[in-house]
Amino acid sequence: MEDCIFCKIISSNSIYKIYEDNWTVAFLDIAKDVDGHILVVPKKHVKNIMDCDTDTLCKVMDAVKRISNHLIDCCAYEGVNLLNASGESAGQSVPHLHIHLIPRKKKDGIDAWPTFAGAKYELETILERIKM
Amino acid sequence: MEDCIFCKIISSNSIYKIYEDNWTVAFLDIAKDVDGHILVVPKKHVKNIMDCDTDTLCKVMDAVKRISNHLIDCCAYEGVNLLNASGESAGQSVPHLHIHLIPRKKKDGIDAWPTFAGAKYELETILERIKM
Repeated sequence: MEDCIFCKIISSNSIYKIYEDNWTVAFLDIAKDVDGHILVVPKKHVKNIMDCDTDTLCKVMDAVKRISNHLIDCCAYEGVNLLNASGESAGQSVPHLHIHLIPRKKKDGIDAWPTFAGAKYELETILERIKM
Repeated sequence: MEDCIFCKIISSNSIYKIYEDNWTVAFLDIAKDVDGHILVVPKKHVKNIMDCDTDTLCKVMDAVKRISNHLIDCCAYEGVNLLNASGESAGQSVPHLHIHLIPRKKKDGIDAWPTFAGAKYELETILERIKM
């Protein structure tokens, strides 16, 4: 998509790309908020998890898995955190599906869990609202 | 797996289950840290993203997508955040793959993004370490 910053990176020769296959690209997030912050994106422009076709989603997650195993097998990391925001209300800033991948080691001092303020409603209330 | 709390929930009649298909189960997290906190898990016991076979991972993500669309189409939510910890070093507490799904609405007061303390290393240093 013409105006999409991630589509531009995908088709560029960015030195920050760390992985590429036929369906996905992974590159370093340049925000430098945490070491090793990687974004994994499909080459196909899809907005988020809600509008992503199953095949593309599988390819993205397969790349996420492959990168995670590489980080652990070859780069002395021990685990990963994954984060995704789908929809503006969830904090999605770039409307091209991206999975954030944070490589982890024991005692690396990183806290990749958000600070939640506690639930306002009883579980039963929520259950009634969302049960499928 | 006998000692796995999530395997026990999968085979139980827990009232907190919100979704089930042949491969996956989704249920409310009872911690009440944030409203609507859902865990999506494969019925097959796999530890995390690193050891999950591609087919199981696709099924889990397909369920995540389906639940996300249900929350938006039928429950007045507008987006979702996804979180995953793979490996003890990443904060994984239950060694059965689970995707945290947080339903979101505009101005819901939820901050689902972790507070990162900033990168210690230059991007080029990280790039050299992790490039595939």
